[in-house]
Amino acid sequence: MANKKSSIYQPLTESDAIALAKRLQLFDEKSQLTCNEIGDGNLNLVFRVVNSENNESVIIKQALPYAKVVGESWPLTLDRSRIETNALIKQSEFVPNLVPKVYYSDEALAITIMEDLSHLQIARAALIDGKNLPLLSKHIGEFLGKTLFYTSDYGLDQHYKKELVKQFINPDLCKITEDLVFTDPFFNHDTNEYEAELQPDVDQIWEDQALKLEVAKLKHLFLTKAEALVHGDLHTGSIFADETETKVIDPEFAYFGPIGFDIGQVFANLLLNALSKDTEKQDILFDHIEETWEVFVAEFSKAWKEDAIETFASVEGYLEYVLSEIFEESVGFAGCEVIRRTIGLARVADIEGIEPKEKRLLTKQLALQVGSELIKNRKSIKTPKEIKNYTKQPVNF
Amino acid sequence: MANKKSSIYQPLTESDAIALAKRLQLFDEKSQLTCNEIGDGNLNLVFRVVNSENNESVIIKQALPYAKVVGESWPLTLDRSRIETNALIKQSEFVPNLVPKVYYSDEALAITIMEDLSHLQIARAALIDGKNLPLLSKHIGEFLGKTLFYTSDYGLDQHYKKELVKQFINPDLCKITEDLVFTDPFFNHDTNEYEAELQPDVDQIWEDQALKLEVAKLKHLFLTKAEALVHGDLHTGSIFADETETKVIDPEFAYFGPIGFDIGQVFANLLLNALSKDTEKQDILFDHIEETWEVFVAEFSKAWKEDAIETFASVEGYLEYVLSEIFEESVGFAGCEVIRRTIGLARVADIEGIEPKEKRLLTKQLALQVGSELIKNRKSIKTPKEIKNYTKQPVNF
Repeated sequence: MANKKSSIYQPLTESDAIALAKRLQLFDEKSQLTCNEIGDGNLNLVFRVVNSENNESVIIKQALPYAKVVGESWPLTLDRSRIETNALIKQSEFVPNLVPKVYYSDEALAITIMEDLSHLQIARAALIDGKNLPLLSKHIGEFLGKTLFYTSDYGLDQHYKKELVKQFINPDLCKITEDLVFTDPFFNHDTNEYEAELQPDVDQIWEDQALKLEVAKLKHLFLTKAEALVHGDLHTGSIFADETETKVIDPEFAYFGPIGFDIGQVFANLLLNALSKDTEKQDILFDHIEETWEVFVAEFSKAWKEDAIETFASVEGYLEYVLSEIFEESVGFAGCEVIRRTIGLARVADIEGIEPKEKRLLTKQLALQVGSELIKNRKSIKTPKEIKNYTKQPVNF
Repeated sequence: MANKKSSIYQPLTESDAIALAKRLQLFDEKSQLTCNEIGDGNLNLVFRVVNSENNESVIIKQALPYAKVVGESWPLTLDRSRIETNALIKQSEFVPNLVPKVYYSDEALAITIMEDLSHLQIARAALIDGKNLPLLSKHIGEFLGKTLFYTSDYGLDQHYKKELVKQFINPDLCKITEDLVFTDPFFNHDTNEYEAELQPDVDQIWEDQALKLEVAKLKHLFLTKAEALVHGDLHTGSIFADETETKVIDPEFAYFGPIGFDIGQVFANLLLNALSKDTEKQDILFDHIEETWEVFVAEFSKAWKEDAIETFASVEGYLEYVLSEIFEESVGFAGCEVIRRTIGLARVADIEGIEPKEKRLLTKQLALQVGSELIKNRKSIKTPKEIKNYTKQPVNF
């Protein structure tokens, strides 16, 4: 399953990466190239190849046939490299300035060569550092509005869209999300991890049949709703940013799924960062949540009015209905993401880094409560402002 | 688009069909075979090859690279033959007695060789003739319950299901449904056809923004909801039956779509037959509608309890929620089907055959009214019995 191309595939070394860059003439012939592997070694090799004379550089990313997570090694399809390359190329049709440029790809070697974004910082780290990233939500709202509208049946030839659905069938990476976001955190599963003191709160989630029924519905949407080409892993760790630039990276989880999934992950990861901050520093995050939604709505609506190919697009109330359904689902997906990032396998530095422990536990309790309420109340929550209100309640677990 | 395999493909003649049957050793070597082409020539060639000594027979069905509809010729992908064969084989895993056996297929020639069902009658014709087909709804309910559960994420390995989704991407035939069921009848489109006297009633549909908003939502479900491998064209003309046997044929529109689409088409075509009958003869059709739903629920629930692979399947209320959502969507899809079969391109003999014209016009007015109400009221309709009530109201167009 993991590696259909084992006869050709092999992991590159740093000197292989330099040789490849030369062979592809990505630099002047006489350039002095240096290379460092800068990945975290969990999923991919990431080589930064630099021309030491003028500092021009590229990133050579190569998928590894396994994932190292908390010490374990899971086999993981190399096909995700094809998905990532094709998603980047498709997204660049609509938001060329918000994704890294792709220079070259090789499916058999599971390689994508792309723009070096080392001058930017991962948004999660920047937000933890207290940076404002003033254009983050404007850019992410634009990314969401354009990539999701123009790959949906509202904005894309419906025949061609089906061919794209086929091209982006992504079972292995979808399975990770189905398990780690939508299933394991809601059952006593050995991938979960949390402080022993949280057990009563976690038990409450596992025993809450009404909550689990709503999660089941959201999971079914993730499994079945082929609405648009979603990024599929759009947390703040998949965004490079600084004060003026934003780039969305790593779309290896891309597939045709519900539009609200991407938006919900953005909401949730901004919310988790807010929860990790003192009250007076939270508003900037809630403002980012609001602005992400507002810009998404503006971009999606503009695209709808200018470029909708769906005959029913002009029917009174249809756009408003679509947006309200997307919002409701976004809120529900955000709730799932908040819970899984608190007690599941892949937790976040925003929350894990809170000291002292007592404060961290209280924050996690609040996160579990907010996550549950977003899921259960998603039909009555109508604006992103209301999301903030849920974080202001006393923890009642 | 229509024919990627033109270098190999060519339409068979009757003697080609006999030669093929011999080459494949479908009959004893010394058999005297005769062959008749019995198709209606619109979409497919259908050869019936018979051993005149013992009356053993097979059907050789070959897709044509075009569709003849009302005199026009539309290019139509030969790939539908692959879809049909694969759907029949997949369905036969769950309901071997309710689909024709497949003996052989050839993708390049767009050929499927299958069980001869000439001893049965097309259900639409039988119902028009006033036959009861006492087991029709029991069998169709079983077909629906089993094929739809076991190809959904509730009952099928979720990884394998995605591979099947890919295999059954079916853009050309889905497009026909998107246009002829969900779009054209709701707009002034040249595929529509109806008596001039119906224009005020048709105008009312075209001007009804609330109705069109609901149709837009249902169309979007058809475009995006990859819930199970649906037959995709499950009207009474796709069913062979007699008093004891039922066989579902012609799944060339099969794709992963909403479960309610198949159920809705069954409801609608039984309903249209009921509308064509005098009052005292309608109950048998409404009973079929009720029993189809009841047997579907029983089969789907049994499969859920015995074979569900979804972790959330045991959550309180989940099965009930899933069934209520399927019913709601079935009612809405039934409404669309009733309307398109009344004024769209592919109307039905049940209604078209009503004489005198005044009676036919009244029936069509009622059909348009019932179809609209099913679409608009689908959330409040909770049982198939209520569908009948809508046909008992005075026509208020």
